[in-house]
Amino acid sequence: MQRFISLITDFGWDGHYPGAMKGAILAINPAVEIVDITHGIAAHGILEAALALRSSYGFFPPLTIHVAVVDPGVGGPRRGILVSSEKHLFVGPDNGILGPVMSELGSFACYELTAAHYFHREVSPTFHGRDIFGPVAAWLSRGIECRHFGRKISDPVRLEPPRARAVPGGLEGEVLYVDRFGNLVTSIRDADLAEALGGRAASCAVEGSDAPIPLRKYYGEAAPGQSCALVGSSGFLEVAVNRGRAAEILGVKVGQKVTVLGARLDFPTP
Amino acid sequence: MQRFISLITDFGWDGHYPGAMKGAILAINPAVEIVDITHGIAAHGILEAALALRSSYGFFPPLTIHVAVVDPGVGGPRRGILVSSEKHLFVGPDNGILGPVMSELGSFACYELTAAHYFHREVSPTFHGRDIFGPVAAWLSRGIECRHFGRKISDPVRLEPPRARAVPGGLEGEVLYVDRFGNLVTSIRDADLAEALGGRAASCAVEGSDAPIPLRKYYGEAAPGQSCALVGSSGFLEVAVNRGRAAEILGVKVGQKVTVLGARLDFPTP
Amino acid sequence: MQRFISLITDFGWDGHYPGAMKGAILAINPAVEIVDITHGIAAHGILEAALALRSSYGFFPPLTIHVAVVDPGVGGPRRGILVSSEKHLFVGPDNGILGPVMSELGSFACYELTAAHYFHREVSPTFHGRDIFGPVAAWLSRGIECRHFGRKISDPVRLEPPRARAVPGGLEGEVLYVDRFGNLVTSIRDADLAEALGGRAASCAVEGSDAPIPLRKYYGEAAPGQSCALVGSSGFLEVAVNRGRAAEILGVKVGQKVTVLGARLDFPTP
Repeated sequence: MQRFISLITDFGWDGHYPGAMKGAILAINPAVEIVDITHGIAAHGILEAALALRSSYGFFPPLTIHVAVVDPGVGGPRRGILVSSEKHLFVGPDNGILGPVMSELGSFACYELTAAHYFHREVSPTFHGRDIFGPVAAWLSRGIECRHFGRKISDPVRLEPPRARAVPGGLEGEVLYVDRFGNLVTSIRDADLAEALGGRAASCAVEGSDAPIPLRKYYGEAAPGQSCALVGSSGFLEVAVNRGRAAEILGVKVGQKVTVLGARLDFPTP
Repeated sequence: MQRFISLITDFGWDGHYPGAMKGAILAINPAVEIVDITHGIAAHGILEAALALRSSYGFFPPLTIHVAVVDPGVGGPRRGILVSSEKHLFVGPDNGILGPVMSELGSFACYELTAAHYFHREVSPTFHGRDIFGPVAAWLSRGIECRHFGRKISDPVRLEPPRARAVPGGLEGEVLYVDRFGNLVTSIRDADLAEALGGRAASCAVEGSDAPIPLRKYYGEAAPGQSCALVGSSGFLEVAVNRGRAAEILGVKVGQKVTVLGARLDFPTP
Repeated sequence: MQRFISLITDFGWDGHYPGAMKGAILAINPAVEIVDITHGIAAHGILEAALALRSSYGFFPPLTIHVAVVDPGVGGPRRGILVSSEKHLFVGPDNGILGPVMSELGSFACYELTAAHYFHREVSPTFHGRDIFGPVAAWLSRGIECRHFGRKISDPVRLEPPRARAVPGGLEGEVLYVDRFGNLVTSIRDADLAEALGGRAASCAVEGSDAPIPLRKYYGEAAPGQSCALVGSSGFLEVAVNRGRAAEILGVKVGQKVTVLGARLDFPTP
């Protein structure tokens, strides 16, 4: 069976760090297939990487090994961990980067990475992606069982993005991140929205802006240059501008509040 | 036979979008080999993607499946299409992104993507790369015949970069895009140039600049910091500065006019 | 046996250049596995690419073929070369890009690439990555012996990063490059440091800044926002700021001097 290792890191695309890590994996298992999810997470962006992982792992083949490395604590006391469920495996530092995935899985086992014979023969105190997490993933892909990498632990560091809060008539959340199209991805989830609105028509507002924003299904339902809000492909409500960058046009930043209120408003369709 | 799927998108390199799309492909066909051409097309840059595809597909192995997704109309009425020729297959939105390739192929069949059992079980109205185009490419790579994806159509949207125009003594074109080295890639094609000049010596001029620019074969024929014009690796005339960025040094932008005139001028060679 | 071709170029991630090169390789050997190290080397950054290659090639499986293309002299008189050692193969322009690797290997054979039947049928004078270096690597991966690509040569262009110099009480080097985390990677090597200091405690100073910087093992030994110096994962001393960008915080640029002096200083640990 073909095995896959996916990579999410903040190593950047311009240097040799991702390449050295990929070489170290292939040196252990030349038959594994490496898939770059991204190496462009902002430096030290643990939550950003955690969300990128949560939004992508479910689309991969069963038994894919997902390696996520944003690791400002590298070399210090923070542990390395391996998280295992029936269908997926995850490897990374124990700093919360695997937190949202753990919440999604519900049931999983977590192991501390201590079996140094599965690490690179020399471990740099500044590059565990190449010397620990990559090699562990490579040995996993060769069929080494999880329990051989270290003891089971029950207290991995958990990290969660903020959740939307109920407010009179609707929900209040915040901007989690800005995607590559300038769309404002919020903490308001599809399911929370459905529950709060119960099918009522609704509109959306962002902090610092008076204009209500209509809820739509797809970007093109707004006229070019006009804003809309819609449930994006990862299940989060996002505020967008058709063919424009909402972040700049609306002047909104990560952390700003976004509210959805159930109310019938008439918005023009283009 | 090893099959390949190449990807050109405007999803950017910093988020999870390319990774989710790759996962969705591999979940359908773990044996296919995915090759990233680029995910760095400017957001909504349909023509830019179309040119990147046109300049690279011909170098790939026969029967490679090229997926090109720059898709501002995602979720709306625009169709998804599959273009098939004897040697290559192409999948993408019907917005012109496959236009230049269709012109190059001359003879091809085009199908509208409607067979939803080849799509992801849930289709997000904002991410057809992951939920439609990727999965269709994956099923194609497993040998499903084109006609199973939908009916043949004869009216796909065509898009072409502007062509050079004949002017007294030569040709006039425009800057199509600026490449990563700052070179100004123009709409003047190798073949048009050969026909217009018939072997005469020639020089080139860019709008807003008086200085004639010599035609050369390679960058190093100009002294460092000096400009030259040459036929680039995709068959388009480009204006370059040896070891410098022509776009900034000459102050030229996409859309500005470039003229080539047959005239014997003496340019120094370094 | 699975064969690998690694790529380091300055082609950038946003255009079709890396994709065209990968297509050309796979068209010759569909069974080879291509690994992108990076395409984000600064345009014309020969030394930067040479260092990225030196810091990563050793982690790859034996007999990996490493292709490094930063090639401002493309199309002109500079030669193309192939460097072969017992465990690794390297292909690139003869402009020094393979220099540091040659020094590391010590013993190797070098061949000039002249056998045009292993090149693309048409060779663009501006894109030898696609038309010469990629195809040669692909044929190498199919088992063609080195001597078939051209004659042995003994005078390849050598290029070395500057070395640290002994100064009274320590070593003086300079900043070679700034990595993606803003860390200042210097020319002071692990071994030189060990020899010069002989285990004495030491501190570090950067040109233009009075404050001594403590030597540490890992970033987290400095308090967040505080600077430290440590031996990085490629064996070079680097100056870093824990969870910050040293380059900007210390206002230091490539080429500035960095000194390490053996002296017992008391630095607080967080």
